[in-house]
Amino acid sequence: MKLSEIAGILDGDIEGSRDTEITGAGKIESAKGDQITFISNPLYEKYYETTSAGCVIVSREFEPSKVRSDIPLLRVDDPYIAFVKLLELFEEENEEGEGISDSAVIDENCELGEGIYIGEFVRLGRESRVGDGTRIYHNCTIGKGVVIGKNCLVYSNVSIYDNCRLADNIIIHSGTVIGSDGFGFAKQSDGSYKKIPQTGNVVIGNNVEIGSNTSIDRATIGSTVIGNGVKIDNQVQIAHNVEIGENTVIAAQAGIAGSSRIGKRCMIAGQAGIVGHISICDDVIIGASVGVSKSITEPGIYTGYRAKPSKEDLRQEVRIRNLEALEKRLKAIEERIQKI
Amino acid sequence: MKLSEIAGILDGDIEGSRDTEITGAGKIESAKGDQITFISNPLYEKYYETTSAGCVIVSREFEPSKVRSDIPLLRVDDPYIAFVKLLELFEEENEEGEGISDSAVIDENCELGEGIYIGEFVRLGRESRVGDGTRIYHNCTIGKGVVIGKNCLVYSNVSIYDNCRLADNIIIHSGTVIGSDGFGFAKQSDGSYKKIPQTGNVVIGNNVEIGSNTSIDRATIGSTVIGNGVKIDNQVQIAHNVEIGENTVIAAQAGIAGSSRIGKRCMIAGQAGIVGHISICDDVIIGASVGVSKSITEPGIYTGYRAKPSKEDLRQEVRIRNLEALEKRLKAIEERIQKI
Amino acid sequence: MKLSEIAGILDGDIEGSRDTEITGAGKIESAKGDQITFISNPLYEKYYETTSAGCVIVSREFEPSKVRSDIPLLRVDDPYIAFVKLLELFEEENEEGEGISDSAVIDENCELGEGIYIGEFVRLGRESRVGDGTRIYHNCTIGKGVVIGKNCLVYSNVSIYDNCRLADNIIIHSGTVIGSDGFGFAKQSDGSYKKIPQTGNVVIGNNVEIGSNTSIDRATIGSTVIGNGVKIDNQVQIAHNVEIGENTVIAAQAGIAGSSRIGKRCMIAGQAGIVGHISICDDVIIGASVGVSKSITEPGIYTGYRAKPSKEDLRQEVRIRNLEALEKRLKAIEERIQKI
Repeated sequence: MKLSEIAGILDGDIEGSRDTEITGAGKIESAKGDQITFISNPLYEKYYETTSAGCVIVSREFEPSKVRSDIPLLRVDDPYIAFVKLLELFEEENEEGEGISDSAVIDENCELGEGIYIGEFVRLGRESRVGDGTRIYHNCTIGKGVVIGKNCLVYSNVSIYDNCRLADNIIIHSGTVIGSDGFGFAKQSDGSYKKIPQTGNVVIGNNVEIGSNTSIDRATIGSTVIGNGVKIDNQVQIAHNVEIGENTVIAAQAGIAGSSRIGKRCMIAGQAGIVGHISICDDVIIGASVGVSKSITEPGIYTGYRAKPSKEDLRQEVRIRNLEALEKRLKAIEERIQKI
Repeated sequence: MKLSEIAGILDGDIEGSRDTEITGAGKIESAKGDQITFISNPLYEKYYETTSAGCVIVSREFEPSKVRSDIPLLRVDDPYIAFVKLLELFEEENEEGEGISDSAVIDENCELGEGIYIGEFVRLGRESRVGDGTRIYHNCTIGKGVVIGKNCLVYSNVSIYDNCRLADNIIIHSGTVIGSDGFGFAKQSDGSYKKIPQTGNVVIGNNVEIGSNTSIDRATIGSTVIGNGVKIDNQVQIAHNVEIGENTVIAAQAGIAGSSRIGKRCMIAGQAGIVGHISICDDVIIGASVGVSKSITEPGIYTGYRAKPSKEDLRQEVRIRNLEALEKRLKAIEERIQKI
Repeated sequence: MKLSEIAGILDGDIEGSRDTEITGAGKIESAKGDQITFISNPLYEKYYETTSAGCVIVSREFEPSKVRSDIPLLRVDDPYIAFVKLLELFEEENEEGEGISDSAVIDENCELGEGIYIGEFVRLGRESRVGDGTRIYHNCTIGKGVVIGKNCLVYSNVSIYDNCRLADNIIIHSGTVIGSDGFGFAKQSDGSYKKIPQTGNVVIGNNVEIGSNTSIDRATIGSTVIGNGVKIDNQVQIAHNVEIGENTVIAAQAGIAGSSRIGKRCMIAGQAGIVGHISICDDVIIGASVGVSKSITEPGIYTGYRAKPSKEDLRQEVRIRNLEALEKRLKAIEERIQKI
């Protein structure tokens, strides 16, 4: 694609050759002559002098310390947003085509939409439904009575248990398990445990993305619910009967124990843990590795091994760091008093 | 099923219509007219006034603030236990039937019991044994020389490495890996690592349940051992040569490092971590996200970022919270002394 | 194999019968008469009196309290190294043979090396390459344009996304996902998130081992890079654009957030977490469950919920433990002053 075309798409202004041929995007440190790159964070401006990229997208205000006449600049309002737009443009079309692979096993009474793709070694249980344009990759196992909406993308080696319901435009990455039994046992008098039947399912809203090797357990009765627009990273654990509100984001290795409810637009950072049977209100930010053992009813940032409002946590951290000084002051007083 | 039949099974007494037809179970907030529900926790009594359930199981002592003539009550000794019994009753029969799917690949010299089910795209290595009534779902890979006992349930996409041995009545959820190599390397003089061959296996006792995406490594030599009745949640890591005692319960995302031994009837909460080469005695409770770096020889509850007996940990937590007051008292003294 | 042969291979001296027949290796507590065992750690010397092993490898200096005439000793310079060498010797040859299983689906334009093995239900995407001697086990999904070098071992149920590049002598355990999308979203004004296309790949160096159920995300642009000789345990999360230096070791359930760079020869213990966009220099040791939120520029050991140099962390821990005494001293002073 010619740079002039790209400038048209991004509504940008070229300084330099309009005819440069661009075939892809790259990082400013490593982009080649047929790749376009960008500078958004000033920390990366230093690479401008040495980059081999075919073009650099910059802000309208960008002033290089030394102009490079060999590389055209493309000036736009927001270089980052423009670059993301370009990535979408260059994103390799998924070329698997449509259709159902020869090896896939589709049980009786399934409803298959138009323009779908079912990969090799996929097993689709009876009475399941796959909506228009949905793609299910290789080695996935989909249970019976599962409903998957339109334009979903299920990567390889995913397991979806019986009766789970997925809405539209959902992406699920490899190795993820949807609908496994909740961890529910009743202690017996002899110290052993008896399994409490897990009879519910998992219900996932529109536009949800779920990373790789994540687990979402089905409810004991009723549904574990993932709201519209929720984004879940890799290796996240979501226990039975949990409910996650719309547009909440959960980073890798976080865990949410049984029956807890997370509000809308929350951000839960990596390795955070939330105990069972509590509620987190809307617009709460939980820091990395934070442990939440009580309900949170006020929006804000919470940090610490035992979750606290972040300001309070930082003050406590400072006090602990000051303990050495405190001890010295105490010692000084003791000596002083000794003399008195 | 008529309510009168259910009352017979649960040994309960009906107040209201004995002829109500019940087809399933539901949560009191959302149960429909053909579903039965229960009240065990008093917090849920408030839903009695608004539920649409076809019947509510309650204790013999339950006294509603306002009697609803439209919904029969079923009085039993323990509503929770009665409800679990009903869930078992209503639990959908697994209807996959018996047999070996056409696509499964069974290597030579396998011994297959009666009434088993082997799903699509399962590969069973040579000289493996599958006991009567065991079901192995789709896309599982079972190595050679593996022994699986009777009435086990192995969900889809599970990998079991060579020579592992599973007893009877075991459930393994999707994505779990049994018998991968332990993490053992010998540091070389040039800073690189040389793999120490992992030649052992994993041995799992009767009545064990293992969640999804869990990893249990095989021993370097000998066996990693999971005792009878152990329940392991999702995304748990059990390293090589670990031994877990009978009826111990391990919640999601907990990790146990190499060669550690866990006693019987322990409870290890979510995200807890136990370092290698230590012992935890019987009847120990480890809290969520607790780090255990030394052996524990006394039963009890242990909490904290660095595990301590829980009472001690809580006292320490209070002292830290009181640091602000402590600083003020110190300051007051300093000023007082200044004056003296 | 006769003990005399083993002695020759290990350059050791036999005390006792040279003709003992050895067929395998075992732990000293449980080894049988045809198995060889070893004593390296003095803690295990006590088992010498009771072992049933066919031979015990010991150091040249080992002096048993009571000589057992029924069991030959094999004296070597370093019993542990000798034993590991033997494990390699006894390690069961992988007997799957060579070839491509009937059920595997190999797309067009793949290049397959000599002496490879492709297991059942493997799908290899178009234009992928598999080097000489590499073995890919059952139910793996390999994307298109993937390059796998020589003598690699990919266990069952592994997913490798399009265009990832693996060098030689790499081992990947079951359930691991290489190349899933990074967790990158742009917040929209209505509170929802828009996916940022992830267009890069994962590049893995020589002699890398990766455990089970681990996730390594591909870069947004460019590559997520795992250096030569890196060893990664089970359930590790490596986010997009991370770079790991040569011979670094990462234990189970650790997580490294996006764009962080880890130096060479680092050791990252289990459940540790490293936030995004920071650098860890060479030769750093991060303790178990430690949280690292700032770059580390000095080699050494770092511990604590909030990573600190280990000595500093321990001093702080002692100060917190001394808080009770501190409070008492303060109280004493207050009473003293009261009297003054």
